[in-house]
Amino acid sequence: MVVFDVNETLSDMSPLADSFERVGLGGDEVEAWFAGVLRDGFALTSVGANPSFADVASESLRVRLGAHRTAPGEIDAAVEGVMTAFGHLPVHADVVEGVRALRAFGLRLVTLSNGSTGVAEGLLARAGLTDAFERLLSVEGAPAWKPHPSSYAHALSTCQVSAGEALLVAVHPWDIDGATRAGLRTAWLNRNGTSYPSYFTAPDIEAPDLVALARILG
Amino acid sequence: MVVFDVNETLSDMSPLADSFERVGLGGDEVEAWFAGVLRDGFALTSVGANPSFADVASESLRVRLGAHRTAPGEIDAAVEGVMTAFGHLPVHADVVEGVRALRAFGLRLVTLSNGSTGVAEGLLARAGLTDAFERLLSVEGAPAWKPHPSSYAHALSTCQVSAGEALLVAVHPWDIDGATRAGLRTAWLNRNGTSYPSYFTAPDIEAPDLVALARILG
Repeated sequence: MVVFDVNETLSDMSPLADSFERVGLGGDEVEAWFAGVLRDGFALTSVGANPSFADVASESLRVRLGAHRTAPGEIDAAVEGVMTAFGHLPVHADVVEGVRALRAFGLRLVTLSNGSTGVAEGLLARAGLTDAFERLLSVEGAPAWKPHPSSYAHALSTCQVSAGEALLVAVHPWDIDGATRAGLRTAWLNRNGTSYPSYFTAPDIEAPDLVALARILG
Repeated sequence: MVVFDVNETLSDMSPLADSFERVGLGGDEVEAWFAGVLRDGFALTSVGANPSFADVASESLRVRLGAHRTAPGEIDAAVEGVMTAFGHLPVHADVVEGVRALRAFGLRLVTLSNGSTGVAEGLLARAGLTDAFERLLSVEGAPAWKPHPSSYAHALSTCQVSAGEALLVAVHPWDIDGATRAGLRTAWLNRNGTSYPSYFTAPDIEAPDLVALARILG
């Protein structure tokens, strides 16, 4: 079974730069915003909480907009504009062909996201990939966000698969590290050709995109 | 007893923008880098690891420099340049007067950092504040990084103080939240006049800087 991360692994977040600029933020602030969303979500994970991803994402935007001196009356609409764009991102160029190739091997395909199931549903529906996936899972149904081990255990038990039979596919090294610690095999998608941080457990497989990953697994 | 966070709470990180630019990074990348350091440190915290802050910080820089196509032979020197600057930051303008005022009340003052004790030592020595602090503590001596409860418990047990007798002072909402959950009282320094994220436990006290905090406590 292949377990896909969703945000940035399947979805292409680059259109958010324009969304940020439309509400008066810098397009280059997307990276800091998203890193801050995960930072704060992981902080809450480490103290045993399990917040809603959408709440952390939208409230972080609200704080950022306030810091930019956006007029209070305009903040709600700005947050809604960016979050609507976040809910309507496209998939990366390699996703349709890569997912179809993996499915053609007879592999079971699921998603496991720190975000909501609804965001994954919309993303895959827009890409015409709904039928390729057996289940779309969210940590909303788990005790904690990834990379806490209970998040991966939730996916495995829901699908009745042992850790050793599952491959986690993600662009984020923290997800690779957490899945490895939870006993899964891992494939790191490295679309930008960057190096892998040495403080995280290394992936079993590295591939530049999903099409290349399917070729390796084939 | 007052427990101070160190990075950004006492130290002024704004000179790092110049350090980033000197090695070919954008000055506006400092925020994303530092958020990413905490994101990855907290991810490791949530799976039970306790990495070295300096390792995560320098390796994150290395990955970022590689993504900027810095020549491999120049990366070591660039990382060293930025990390040297990180180890020689000044304190914020309000810190000397604020710390002196709090010390004049007879309060015990300590630091508790996710970074090394050495960075805090250098920072306070350059500011002429070494004598004001009873101890400089790091999570290197604790089971986990802040905001895990064991980090605050480490500081309390080392200083033989109960949680209810301690006030955590920090600019970071995740630190306020963690300290509150660990039973400490909290003061959030809000130097930029931003709003506090609703997904974190609110601080007991909010002050624009340390001088104002001393006035409130006085």
